[in-house]
Amino acid sequence: MKNFHYSIKTDIHFGKGAIENLPNEIKKYGKKVLLVYGGGSIRKIGLYDKVLDLLNENNIKCIEISGVEPNPRIDTVRRGVRFVKSDKIDVILPIGGGSTIDCAKAISAGSFYDGDPWDLIVDSSKIKKVLPIISVLTLAATGSEMDAGAVISNLETREKLGFGHPDLRPKASILDPEYTYTVPKNQTAAGTADIMSHILEVYFSKNEGAYLQDRMCEALLKTCIHYGPIAYRDGENYEARANLMWASSLAINGLLSNGKSGAWSVHPIEHELSAYYDITHGVGLAILTPNWMEYVLDNTTIEKFVQYGINVWDIDKSLDKEKIAKESIEKTREFFKSLEIPSCLKEININDKHFEDMAEHCVRKGIIDGYKLLDKDSIIQIFKSSL
Amino acid sequence: MKNFHYSIKTDIHFGKGAIENLPNEIKKYGKKVLLVYGGGSIRKIGLYDKVLDLLNENNIKCIEISGVEPNPRIDTVRRGVRFVKSDKIDVILPIGGGSTIDCAKAISAGSFYDGDPWDLIVDSSKIKKVLPIISVLTLAATGSEMDAGAVISNLETREKLGFGHPDLRPKASILDPEYTYTVPKNQTAAGTADIMSHILEVYFSKNEGAYLQDRMCEALLKTCIHYGPIAYRDGENYEARANLMWASSLAINGLLSNGKSGAWSVHPIEHELSAYYDITHGVGLAILTPNWMEYVLDNTTIEKFVQYGINVWDIDKSLDKEKIAKESIEKTREFFKSLEIPSCLKEININDKHFEDMAEHCVRKGIIDGYKLLDKDSIIQIFKSSL
Repeated sequence: MKNFHYSIKTDIHFGKGAIENLPNEIKKYGKKVLLVYGGGSIRKIGLYDKVLDLLNENNIKCIEISGVEPNPRIDTVRRGVRFVKSDKIDVILPIGGGSTIDCAKAISAGSFYDGDPWDLIVDSSKIKKVLPIISVLTLAATGSEMDAGAVISNLETREKLGFGHPDLRPKASILDPEYTYTVPKNQTAAGTADIMSHILEVYFSKNEGAYLQDRMCEALLKTCIHYGPIAYRDGENYEARANLMWASSLAINGLLSNGKSGAWSVHPIEHELSAYYDITHGVGLAILTPNWMEYVLDNTTIEKFVQYGINVWDIDKSLDKEKIAKESIEKTREFFKSLEIPSCLKEININDKHFEDMAEHCVRKGIIDGYKLLDKDSIIQIFKSSL
Repeated sequence: MKNFHYSIKTDIHFGKGAIENLPNEIKKYGKKVLLVYGGGSIRKIGLYDKVLDLLNENNIKCIEISGVEPNPRIDTVRRGVRFVKSDKIDVILPIGGGSTIDCAKAISAGSFYDGDPWDLIVDSSKIKKVLPIISVLTLAATGSEMDAGAVISNLETREKLGFGHPDLRPKASILDPEYTYTVPKNQTAAGTADIMSHILEVYFSKNEGAYLQDRMCEALLKTCIHYGPIAYRDGENYEARANLMWASSLAINGLLSNGKSGAWSVHPIEHELSAYYDITHGVGLAILTPNWMEYVLDNTTIEKFVQYGINVWDIDKSLDKEKIAKESIEKTREFFKSLEIPSCLKEININDKHFEDMAEHCVRKGIIDGYKLLDKDSIIQIFKSSL
């Protein structure tokens, strides 16, 4: 097990009615919030009105910025930062899924920075001071509600970059599974794939000795595999929504990765797809993951796939190792298909036109030192097998 | 899944050399510590000298109290509180296992209380203000390094009582697995049993829907089952010590129990044994647990035991349910035996003399509303089957 510093200080208020805790959490930091949200879905489910009532009752002033994109853009961040600077905001209050919370994080970081916020996305070390964030989650997927990172897109430069700072972890997050009842089937599926990908990125690492962490990864993967299809079929199944929601937070808040190490593999490749084609992140991950697995499976990695096959997919352990490993990948592919996620790039109208450019861009800061080294050619190969 | 508030703010510095973080953690709260420890083991491993050097180099003043008992006593707490009140202490610094950290928690709570500290153990609601605690862990067992509770014994009244307050969660804990290399075999075994018991108390609850939490319980149980025997045989196996140490913290910090509910069953019964006979807590738990399991196994609980048998003990799932359930209990019993923990009360010189009194005292505040209701007679029966 690697050395680590564990510090996960986000307060989580989980369950039915958890929104009632919102005013008290805000009042710890101030009396004026910037409410950040995407489209109209939070109005449809009554959450927007509920939050405004709570803010009013508690004399908390509120400025709004809406229209955050599914892959949140730097232009929206710039718009938010202008609001914060002109209106003396105390707290950023994103209500939505990971895109909205990510956008809020970038606004929070930009609040105390004099230059263009994009500088901070490119170089997180420039982040010195941030505004507190309190989030209300409406989609189980990215885990942004409990982690310290975010991803912002720049359509001009065709970049989708991750950034982070320990202080960007939300101070508190409200997780009421009922707010995810109306998430459409395709987003439920993509969200499940996103959660699973976060876990798989940690699970497939070269670390020895992080036995506890690997067993916890398997626990969360099994939760997604059990409840993903139930939430997909029956959007108002509370237990399914609750388990997926809590899994989304625990998958990426540091619990699994503390004590392990190694770069992520599939996420940076997918970020190229999203940056070039503005596709749903979870869909890109679901398409790439099984093909990445096939690419990295060899004599040096087979034991991990065997572990994965037996412990996560319940494959008969008396089978031949190679059979177990290959079946574990096939099970992964079939699972995403069962959620009706597109299973190849052609299905989402992506051809090989930009493979070279995307792969080149993906390794612009060096070869990906993930579970297996990935250079430009490896990435092109993974793109091709995903066609 | 039940509603919950998750708030686990202890900073953990984990791994080789983690002690170097101690001065900075202390300096967040002040410049004068009360060092609390038990016997001479922290001197033997060089930890005492190392800590004193670090404190000196950082101009942190230090008052000491040593001799904390394995079942820490209220007299020692009273002694510590007198030091704190006379010497204007800023931070309580326990170095040791759970007993030492528990004692430090009681001292911390007593620091701002005018009456006898025992009042606070009997009624935690009287705790209003506490001193910050920063712990250095040398034994993987109780999880006190990351939780908000503690247990203190009163030999006069023959009571061993748990108490707690959210602010008693250590602000930071230093977890270097190397500090547990010299833990004797019997304590390594008892510590493993203690960790497993914390998990089992949460796992066996009536809650439906906490699927994620149950899978995480299994993950941590498997970690104990895998590494307990390795640490027992080979005390200086880093990975075994590391996995057990981190499991001890995660088992009881709230991660598993948030979203579940229900009282603990075996711990209150064991506390009677420790209070009457001053035995090692983990030994009492290991003796009682399989017998408690046999007592609660029936048609209404069998499914959970089947889950436990298959997922934790890898019992063939094609077997008859009753066989799986019974085998899961037998495996539990055999596991503790394999660590050479006494397997019945007679082995530790306890007879039936006080069974009536202990059972009576155990339910003095009402029947235990645990996985299955336990009244005085049930407890006597469990004691008898543990003879």
